Amino acid sequence: MEDFTLINDFINTFIKKNVLDGNLKGAVIGVSGGIDSAVVACCASIALGNDKVLGLILPDKEITPVEDIDDAIKICSSLKMEYKIIYINNIKNELLGILEETDDKLVKGNLMARVRMCILYYYANLLNRVVLGTTNKTEISIGYFTKYGDGASDLFPIGNLYKTQVREFAKFLKIPDHLIYKKSSARLWVNQQTENEIGLSFNELDPILMFINKHNKKDAIIDSSLLGKSFPHISKEKIDYLLDLIIKNQHKFSMPSICNLE
Amino acid sequence: MEDFTLINDFINTFIKKNVLDGNLKGAVIGVSGGIDSAVVACCASIALGNDKVLGLILPDKEITPVEDIDDAIKICSSLKMEYKIIYINNIKNELLGILEETDDKLVKGNLMARVRMCILYYYANLLNRVVLGTTNKTEISIGYFTKYGDGASDLFPIGNLYKTQVREFAKFLKIPDHLIYKKSSARLWVNQQTENEIGLSFNELDPILMFINKHNKKDAIIDSSLLGKSFPHISKEKIDYLLDLIIKNQHKFSMPSICNLE
Repeated sequence: MEDFTLINDFINTFIKKNVLDGNLKGAVIGVSGGIDSAVVACCASIALGNDKVLGLILPDKEITPVEDIDDAIKICSSLKMEYKIIYINNIKNELLGILEETDDKLVKGNLMARVRMCILYYYANLLNRVVLGTTNKTEISIGYFTKYGDGASDLFPIGNLYKTQVREFAKFLKIPDHLIYKKSSARLWVNQQTENEIGLSFNELDPILMFINKHNKKDAIIDSSLLGKSFPHISKEKIDYLLDLIIKNQHKFSMPSICNLE
Repeated sequence: MEDFTLINDFINTFIKKNVLDGNLKGAVIGVSGGIDSAVVACCASIALGNDKVLGLILPDKEITPVEDIDDAIKICSSLKMEYKIIYINNIKNELLGILEETDDKLVKGNLMARVRMCILYYYANLLNRVVLGTTNKTEISIGYFTKYGDGASDLFPIGNLYKTQVREFAKFLKIPDHLIYKKSSARLWVNQQTENEIGLSFNELDPILMFINKHNKKDAIIDSSLLGKSFPHISKEKIDYLLDLIIKNQHKFSMPSICNLE
């Protein structure tokens, strides 16, 4: 069992210190109606005071379920945070009308994640605030986010908590159960579900990632046979898929590489 | 005098290797009509073949001078690269119509830089290509770029060349003189000029940055009095402004910081 009182203190201090050090006036958060942004919004409200936190609810009418919007509003309301609802469909239609057509749902989904980033930073720049990212350690470990979309922020308050730990921490923060056990989704397309996409539940995935992150030495990715021995109930195909994903997405969590001239 | 044959080799190998290693099919570049993107487009065409490089010209009718668009077209045409011109005004109007109004030209300019990034990545994702950034070492050193806008790319081929070196390298690449000596501008608003904004010409700025980058140890920024002694012809105000800029913008060239829980 984690010490969530201590984790809560670490996260609050982290948010407060970074806002103060940067001479910033508060925080902006994209609130999706999912558990990660609910936890970050809750921490930010405690750390900075709810009058210094703006929640941006940025639904896509064609994709975001109404329940998500309702949940996002409920979170902001219960924390007494200011919030705005901005539907991104007109911007999406304008962009897709100008750009080359595609049926690729990931290409379109990534575009929308980046448009949301643009809106978050517009408000952060306007109000002289920080953008708090809501990416967790599970997502960071496998690169499950849009590069320069939801992966783009100033701070990752829950970036060292795996998804299963975020759920436990959410219980500690007294976030309603139905949010904690809602199926995780990036909502880049209709019926997208994280666990289906990855082929593993978070209860299966997180222990594997903990093992990998513990045993990894810098850029060397762990051997799949070692993982197979430690997690005999997970198929070789799933382990290989996971390792491929980690290698393929490594570029997502590093700065653009600069050509060395020496 | 730099050895530009060697620099050319380094940059070509860097682009080629990264595209091959990533199993990517080519490159996408935002071509502005300025010298930096002209150099990167030229290098990419040599490295990958001009049929594997797409130039995206993304003007804002209200801000981008017609000469810039002409120059951008000329660069792509002379390199026999495919290019597209996409005016971003409709997207801009849609966004500014939805978001809170402001007269702050930097807030609006940053938004446009981020919209351009969204478009570059849309095509990169669609075509399975890499986004080549055009940021140079002068800009990286002082953080003169929009975070998650023009600062967002997969690779920075000229990220180790200061602006004055980019100009020399451009001569080596036989890029036309009028492009090389065009006044540098991020074109985030009408009549924006980099050298006016920073208060130093690139001929003044680059030697100072070279000195700072050479003497800096990790995060410790150099003492302003040491700089004053080495650059007696630059006023103390300008030196202090520059050091403030470097410190203030350090967050722009690092990944979002993650809350440590240990």
